[in-house]
Amino acid sequence: MSLVVLGTVALDHVKTPSGARRDLLGGSASHFAMSARLFTQVHLVAIVGEDFPQKHITFLKQKGIDLTSLTIEKGKSFRWKGEYRGNDFNTAITLATELGVLMNFSPRLARHQRQIPNVFLANIDPDIQMQLLRLMGRPRLIGLDSMNLWINHKRSSLKRLMKKIHLFVANDGEARQLSQEHNLIKAAKALRKMGPSYIVIKKGEHGVLFYCDQFMFSFPAFPVEHVVDPTGAGDTFAGGLMGYLTKAGQVNEQTLRRALIYATTLSSFNVEGFGMAKTAPLTMAQVKQRMNKLIKFIAV
Amino acid sequence: MSLVVLGTVALDHVKTPSGARRDLLGGSASHFAMSARLFTQVHLVAIVGEDFPQKHITFLKQKGIDLTSLTIEKGKSFRWKGEYRGNDFNTAITLATELGVLMNFSPRLARHQRQIPNVFLANIDPDIQMQLLRLMGRPRLIGLDSMNLWINHKRSSLKRLMKKIHLFVANDGEARQLSQEHNLIKAAKALRKMGPSYIVIKKGEHGVLFYCDQFMFSFPAFPVEHVVDPTGAGDTFAGGLMGYLTKAGQVNEQTLRRALIYATTLSSFNVEGFGMAKTAPLTMAQVKQRMNKLIKFIAV
Repeated sequence: MSLVVLGTVALDHVKTPSGARRDLLGGSASHFAMSARLFTQVHLVAIVGEDFPQKHITFLKQKGIDLTSLTIEKGKSFRWKGEYRGNDFNTAITLATELGVLMNFSPRLARHQRQIPNVFLANIDPDIQMQLLRLMGRPRLIGLDSMNLWINHKRSSLKRLMKKIHLFVANDGEARQLSQEHNLIKAAKALRKMGPSYIVIKKGEHGVLFYCDQFMFSFPAFPVEHVVDPTGAGDTFAGGLMGYLTKAGQVNEQTLRRALIYATTLSSFNVEGFGMAKTAPLTMAQVKQRMNKLIKFIAV
Repeated sequence: MSLVVLGTVALDHVKTPSGARRDLLGGSASHFAMSARLFTQVHLVAIVGEDFPQKHITFLKQKGIDLTSLTIEKGKSFRWKGEYRGNDFNTAITLATELGVLMNFSPRLARHQRQIPNVFLANIDPDIQMQLLRLMGRPRLIGLDSMNLWINHKRSSLKRLMKKIHLFVANDGEARQLSQEHNLIKAAKALRKMGPSYIVIKKGEHGVLFYCDQFMFSFPAFPVEHVVDPTGAGDTFAGGLMGYLTKAGQVNEQTLRRALIYATTLSSFNVEGFGMAKTAPLTMAQVKQRMNKLIKFIAV
């Protein structure tokens, strides 16, 4: 089975206490795809401008990511400039956002991609996320990520979307903001009531909380001593989660636990380097090696 | 084997979003003992004033706690008045502290208690903690807890003490403050270098991180939906940890993991009620029942 991801493909300028990098390949769909490709065929749906470096496109293709539905349009690519200050790696300070071609993005999907059963709506305007859903057949598993911007400014669009999806991924701040509950168990229950059966709350260095009607569980994060750049960690996490569930072909307690262990492992690689420096070269053998360390770390 | 705990026995006034209570039996040694008594004979070393309610003393005795070395002295008992505001249950706002008889406390220890092999120095002035150690034979396992006040004002006393102990328990803020490292793995390593072989960092609702030279592990906390009063949660945690290790009779990876699962379970009961409302009535069967839930919650 394969997997469609809608989101952004961006050029990132990032500054962290470890240094600064310009024109990194970034965006929610790119980071997601770089992680999910380890498990399954990923079909990426996004837009870039004509100024987008060919090397990044070649790179994604070489990683086996299907770019049939990557639109290349006249104009400038989406750019994000952000900084992480001091020890707070959980919150990026956005210095600049240039939407460029993203301003008028209507996702398109090749005919053969419309019946793909697994879809992830990575972080992008919820109205665009809804547009993609309308292009698709009846996906078996729809995952959704969002961000504070949309929770604030497009709450009603987001709430309509919540009714259509199965799995919602949010960080703790977003979960609290959307649910208006501080306690994360209460927040998870409130989000469940908005529609999705499966609620995944990411707590950064503190790991993850999973909630559904039948069971709940939690894992700490893999301990990373030298965080370099957490940009894309959430998308990398989601890529591992959805990638594994797609490969497994079924969603149950066992596959969900395993998927979240993979997700946790993959995001720990992401934060150890700028952009995709650590995730792009990864092989499944390396992922499994660290996953076994993680399992030992969290075993009862 | 049995266990000595040195710390405070206090009268607490607590206000939380769930309500307010006056003259609760509190203090680091009381909460610790109420938890550790489920595993082993606990010998409490502390001081109270003549004003201390007899009902609290009777209550501790009824719970099987040995009060031979509880000094009752002329003067006022130690009182703490604190508040938890909004959703921040991790930080108590201290409104008032009346030291009373604690001002001139020199711990004493009955002869038969001096050879007890396990000791926990619960939160109290580090100079008093050192005094107790000098009264003891050669304890096999010495645990230590402290707080921001002593880290700020008695850092050198605390550092001397760190050289004498085996197991250090701190919350994340204290661990960062004493080690001057923000990353918790780095903090744990720095604390290890100060002396203790075993470092336990409590992260409140995010669980616990354990570090020693041979291995590391981490658990999330038991998910509590309705936090009522977290006062004493850290002491209750330490009581479960040291209580179980004392009962187990040996310190190794297996007993440490199990001890921290018990500790996590016990502190989850503590936060669900004011003072010891939830921990005092606990039976081992109830603890094991919740522990099994926790194990299911965190299983890989």
